[in-house]
Amino acid sequence: MSDNWLDKINWTQDGLAPAIAQEAATGRVLMLAWMNREALEKTALSGEAHYWSRSRQKLWRKGEESGHVQKVKSIRLDCDEDAILLEIEQTGGIACHTGRHSCFYRTLEAGEWVETDPVLKDSETIYRKR
Amino acid sequence: MSDNWLDKINWTQDGLAPAIAQEAATGRVLMLAWMNREALEKTALSGEAHYWSRSRQKLWRKGEESGHVQKVKSIRLDCDEDAILLEIEQTGGIACHTGRHSCFYRTLEAGEWVETDPVLKDSETIYRKR
Repeated sequence: MSDNWLDKINWTQDGLAPAIAQEAATGRVLMLAWMNREALEKTALSGEAHYWSRSRQKLWRKGEESGHVQKVKSIRLDCDEDAILLEIEQTGGIACHTGRHSCFYRTLEAGEWVETDPVLKDSETIYRKR
Repeated sequence: MSDNWLDKINWTQDGLAPAIAQEAATGRVLMLAWMNREALEKTALSGEAHYWSRSRQKLWRKGEESGHVQKVKSIRLDCDEDAILLEIEQTGGIACHTGRHSCFYRTLEAGEWVETDPVLKDSETIYRKR
């Protein structure tokens, strides 16, 4: 596979692009994370979502600690070539480190962010050494 | 409505946050754009999606030129409080300035970005002065 497809991306000055993970079975948007070139390449080659952690400044295979791996079914690019959309299968049904299905668990209601999605698994259990 | 909910957002150094627009009826992710505080506030108050254009450096009401307004049904915030998810109704069924339903119209296939979504309306027609 040539690398030309990676050269198409308009990375930010920091070499990143936002990537949306959407669950294939439900259509739910589970998270938004960031990719650099290596993360996108590894995602395409391995079929598992890899991201760049801005806080930890390191490449990160989603689920490497929690087991909540994301199997990638398709990778899309937008018109400006600076945003990525992954269609994924979410192992364990939990994308969020808080133990929820989706990271987007708060909804704006009458000027307040209300937690509208339940915790499915407590985060201590998720990250307990296995 | 108090402004406290706006203070919750972890804006980037440039004062922005990525916002995903997902179509309520189909579940399709139509675009990713950027919001500043004013764009998010106007979106919540007006019920129509407003974004910050990084290229034009101005606030932008989606559809102000094309008529392809986005009616907002819900606004969600992620766990890191730095990404926004809008559930929208897309007027005219076209979110992309290229005349496609979604901006994510290219799919990675065997190392190439392939245009997998059709043009529904030519962009000259979309932006013709009305």
